Amino acid sequence: MDRKSNQGDIPTGKFKFFHSVEIRYGDIDAQRHVNNARYFSFMEQARARYLQNLGLWQGRDFDTIGIILAEQRCKYFEPIMYDQEIHVGVRISRLGQKSMDTEYLIQVPGSKSILAFGEAILVAYSYEEGRSIPVPETWLRTIVEFEGL
Amino acid sequence: MDRKSNQGDIPTGKFKFFHSVEIRYGDIDAQRHVNNARYFSFMEQARARYLQNLGLWQGRDFDTIGIILAEQRCKYFEPIMYDQEIHVGVRISRLGQKSMDTEYLIQVPGSKSILAFGEAILVAYSYEEGRSIPVPETWLRTIVEFEGL
Amino acid sequence: MDRKSNQGDIPTGKFKFFHSVEIRYGDIDAQRHVNNARYFSFMEQARARYLQNLGLWQGRDFDTIGIILAEQRCKYFEPIMYDQEIHVGVRISRLGQKSMDTEYLIQVPGSKSILAFGEAILVAYSYEEGRSIPVPETWLRTIVEFEGL
Amino acid sequence: MDRKSNQGDIPTGKFKFFHSVEIRYGDIDAQRHVNNARYFSFMEQARARYLQNLGLWQGRDFDTIGIILAEQRCKYFEPIMYDQEIHVGVRISRLGQKSMDTEYLIQVPGSKSILAFGEAILVAYSYEEGRSIPVPETWLRTIVEFEGL
Repeated sequence: MDRKSNQGDIPTGKFKFFHSVEIRYGDIDAQRHVNNARYFSFMEQARARYLQNLGLWQGRDFDTIGIILAEQRCKYFEPIMYDQEIHVGVRISRLGQKSMDTEYLIQVPGSKSILAFGEAILVAYSYEEGRSIPVPETWLRTIVEFEGL
Repeated sequence: MDRKSNQGDIPTGKFKFFHSVEIRYGDIDAQRHVNNARYFSFMEQARARYLQNLGLWQGRDFDTIGIILAEQRCKYFEPIMYDQEIHVGVRISRLGQKSMDTEYLIQVPGSKSILAFGEAILVAYSYEEGRSIPVPETWLRTIVEFEGL
Repeated sequence: MDRKSNQGDIPTGKFKFFHSVEIRYGDIDAQRHVNNARYFSFMEQARARYLQNLGLWQGRDFDTIGIILAEQRCKYFEPIMYDQEIHVGVRISRLGQKSMDTEYLIQVPGSKSILAFGEAILVAYSYEEGRSIPVPETWLRTIVEFEGL
Repeated sequence: MDRKSNQGDIPTGKFKFFHSVEIRYGDIDAQRHVNNARYFSFMEQARARYLQNLGLWQGRDFDTIGIILAEQRCKYFEPIMYDQEIHVGVRISRLGQKSMDTEYLIQVPGSKSILAFGEAILVAYSYEEGRSIPVPETWLRTIVEFEGL
């Protein structure tokens, strides 16, 4: 199986936000590359920074973030080593009434090679009411404007 | 969006191996449920134990495990709390020439409710040669027999 | 330096509570043994279970645990491997007015060999008031009785 | 207990190397501050960067790092929040024949306030021979020169 055969559909040109992630010694597993589960931590971190960058989250309040993960996936194209510099592109590719599709592009800055590609479906959620809610109006406006949707 | 609407296709009856995972305080994130990335650590742990259970890995040598992840995903149906007991079902649902499709079912033992469902594509790999290889004969025989493929 | 020369003072016979910790593949680092920081996660997990065992915490509420760490340390005597079974002994060795000294003993069950020994100073804390408080009366009574202090 | 009473002995002016650590969402635990075990991951990461900075490790080979931890500790003075910028100072305070004493200072850059202070005893180790060895001559020269010991 050629792990890179399915890179054709990845919209590499559409990412407007990238966040650098420093690989920690502790991210490396017994196979001596970044552990598979850490890719999702990198995606999570880049997503948090994306929201902070758009002014949708201040990084302080954990009761009102208001998004939960319904589903996510990652395609691994190349192993990531401790001594590599990487950044994670984040974009919202689709806005639904109660959900958002997001995409993640892991690359070495300046390189066209794709190390990994992730996708996650986020659902707007009220922790107070314990149920999914419509994506807030301010979020919609901010995201539509930033992403040019 | 109803997060549970897509549970219909999950082959809950086909799992023959389950591994209990103790949720650690450190698995809980600021949202006070198990962090999304830890689900993949749970899947990884259950997969390692599946291979040990089938005698395909002894838990000691990290240079000859010989499988790498090409892709994985997880559907989150319900949050997992610190005080919950869970186990993770593992099965190999398809054997290819160089790859294997695997599935993961996270439940509370004794409950029919599905907390999460994961999928991963594993590729047989030679760390010595640095390339994908055919799934070893002994693996094929052992897995076909165990899974009844 | 003989890493085991300083085992003489460890009160191995005084531990009344042990909690088994399953080593996860993800606990192993590039050196192919358990990562040094994970020992503190194991100690944390055993401490949480100790409190649950004594009925001092139910494992649900994170606003009223009421203890914070002032200081902790770990002595590493032998590396811990993925295929080892371990348990972590926990005891409270000293009760102060606002603090408690705790000790942690990591061993293979049934073996006298000590893999690691930890110590932590816990401070009773009110998250509501944002300051240290006297150790609650019920805690004192329960701990004195359990530990025979 | 005043958690800050014991800051007097910390040699804050002696640190010549600092490494910035980005706090990740995944470093935050249910208490909504950085988890206690992560401080040791931060120290580990800063230590790796210290060695890279001095040219003693290239960040690629995990069989020849040649140092193991005999003991480490951390004093926690203030909780660290997700939205804080921190850096970790690293210094080698004592060179023995086979071991090195190291210290770690966690602060907000530009602030005199100390968030945490760590200490670790490292032992020079040959993974090939499976035993502690004298600290290599090149390490001694480089460290003595850098630290002014």
